[in-house]
Amino acid sequence: MPVGTQAAVKAVSPRDLEEIRAQIILSNTYHLAMRPGHELVREAGGLHRFMNWSHPILTDSGGFQVFSLAELRNIREEGVWFRSHLDGSRHFLSPEKAMEIENALGADIIMALDECMPYPATYDYAKKSTERTARWLGRCVQAHSREDQALFGIIQGSVFADLRKESVERSLEYDLPGYGIGGLSVGEPKPVMYDMLDVIMPMMPKGKPRYLMGVGSPDCLLEGVVRGVDMFDCVLPTRIARNGTVLTSQGKVVVRNAEYARDFTPLDPECDCYACRNFTRAYIRHLIKANEILASILTSIHNLRFLIHLMEEIRRAIWEERLLEFRNDFYEKFGRE
Amino acid sequence: MPVGTQAAVKAVSPRDLEEIRAQIILSNTYHLAMRPGHELVREAGGLHRFMNWSHPILTDSGGFQVFSLAELRNIREEGVWFRSHLDGSRHFLSPEKAMEIENALGADIIMALDECMPYPATYDYAKKSTERTARWLGRCVQAHSREDQALFGIIQGSVFADLRKESVERSLEYDLPGYGIGGLSVGEPKPVMYDMLDVIMPMMPKGKPRYLMGVGSPDCLLEGVVRGVDMFDCVLPTRIARNGTVLTSQGKVVVRNAEYARDFTPLDPECDCYACRNFTRAYIRHLIKANEILASILTSIHNLRFLIHLMEEIRRAIWEERLLEFRNDFYEKFGRE
Repeated sequence: MPVGTQAAVKAVSPRDLEEIRAQIILSNTYHLAMRPGHELVREAGGLHRFMNWSHPILTDSGGFQVFSLAELRNIREEGVWFRSHLDGSRHFLSPEKAMEIENALGADIIMALDECMPYPATYDYAKKSTERTARWLGRCVQAHSREDQALFGIIQGSVFADLRKESVERSLEYDLPGYGIGGLSVGEPKPVMYDMLDVIMPMMPKGKPRYLMGVGSPDCLLEGVVRGVDMFDCVLPTRIARNGTVLTSQGKVVVRNAEYARDFTPLDPECDCYACRNFTRAYIRHLIKANEILASILTSIHNLRFLIHLMEEIRRAIWEERLLEFRNDFYEKFGRE
Repeated sequence: MPVGTQAAVKAVSPRDLEEIRAQIILSNTYHLAMRPGHELVREAGGLHRFMNWSHPILTDSGGFQVFSLAELRNIREEGVWFRSHLDGSRHFLSPEKAMEIENALGADIIMALDECMPYPATYDYAKKSTERTARWLGRCVQAHSREDQALFGIIQGSVFADLRKESVERSLEYDLPGYGIGGLSVGEPKPVMYDMLDVIMPMMPKGKPRYLMGVGSPDCLLEGVVRGVDMFDCVLPTRIARNGTVLTSQGKVVVRNAEYARDFTPLDPECDCYACRNFTRAYIRHLIKANEILASILTSIHNLRFLIHLMEEIRRAIWEERLLEFRNDFYEKFGRE
């Protein structure tokens, strides 16, 4: 799943996203509420029409950016006060307000307001926060007013197995159409993340999507799926693309490096994307060095296609009952971080 | 004709250029010689293969950037010494060297080395410079070694009618496949540029393309064509696009302005480009304010398509013998600067 932070996937047009078979876009509620404002998006006919994307859209609750970007946060039971990172103006985000904004934006999947704790957090803080997130979920369920939007709850609990279990139990009470797993991939070691998934996943209902939030490296996608995850989102593919790094079947390639100046082969010979069908590493490196926007366009298209193709391969491997074999083959070529 | 400064039209992919029916791309010899170097482009199989553009390409001689970008220029009869604007390294550009580089790049049309004088220039300097440019043309003709590339000479002479005439006469001696008109649109008033075209154009041979260099505003395209110009190049459409200004049938629109925040109409309702078929001014303004690269992509595609469409309409008006009428109708809607 590509990430579109501000109602646009960075450097990639909707038709290029369709071509690489992107199925869903994430838009950040915090960014859209700050600019251009959710009322304007509602006036435009909702996010789908505003950004001209007729396929599924997911909005987060805005909480993650409030906790990572905004200033002077003040978390209370009723919600969180913060100042806009753009102009310092004062705002209040509560479960009810998050639902009001997400209902106005009109995405297909909307996320409940949670607190995404930093890592590390003390057990006491994590317990207090996780319980508040559970109470906030109850208020989101109450406030959510559009039946055509699927509200997902978010499992928290930091790296504490018992808190994660409690969070799953409290969330499942609402019998929601899907669930996010939040508060992972925030700095903890990967084995700790996998341990938490091993705690959470066996408790999750079958037939409802499980969405691991903020995860996007190839190995984490594989390890997530092996443990039962269905959906992911991450800035990784487009962010490293804009820095001149591409994902290939043979591992990461820093194509901006001098060693690729005369490499007249595609970014990844096994890839079917527009960039790989038409341009060489040497040319794309030249575009990077010359600060041409086309560099970001081509590397972003490629990295997104690489991950989408990986997920296509994973789905086929599951269907053919050879997922673990596929994982091992993948690591052998790509390497494991 | 869109401008591609560094083997890429800024923010626009080759397939988007094909879609808007761009016929030819200009690549800057100076930029390519400095980075990645013309030897590398030759190794890549020439510019067409390097940038994946199978349609015509034109390269300038590198002179314009040497005179406008490079440092510590020293012009002599044999050529010009300068320092790279990238790393300060010392280089020499002569008619022979320009041909060597342009032959290596392999464009379809290559321009002779000239001195593009600044405006204003004294009559004495202009005379000296114009005569040197004429001698340089002779050396370019001698040095040019590829029959599959069309070498164009460049008419100089600043704003002095007799020098322009002399430059035309000296250039026509070589019976070249086409001619550029240089040293205009460099700061002189538009009526002065038109006066110079009125001097030059009646002297030019029929059936050979006349290329007015560095010109790109809609009114200058029209006035140029009325006087007999066939080709143009300019950074204007993509540069103003990246600053949030678009060309429309009703005139220029600064779409980044607040007045378009709730304008849910296309950039130009009469345009057939991807941006106008799919997005609103309100959305594109949002992308601009949010610094999204997609803003530059969409506004650049639109502005290029606007000028290419204008040229299509001009060709039709010529064919139907109503060019002056078309010009007046255009000014009535677009305005005249």
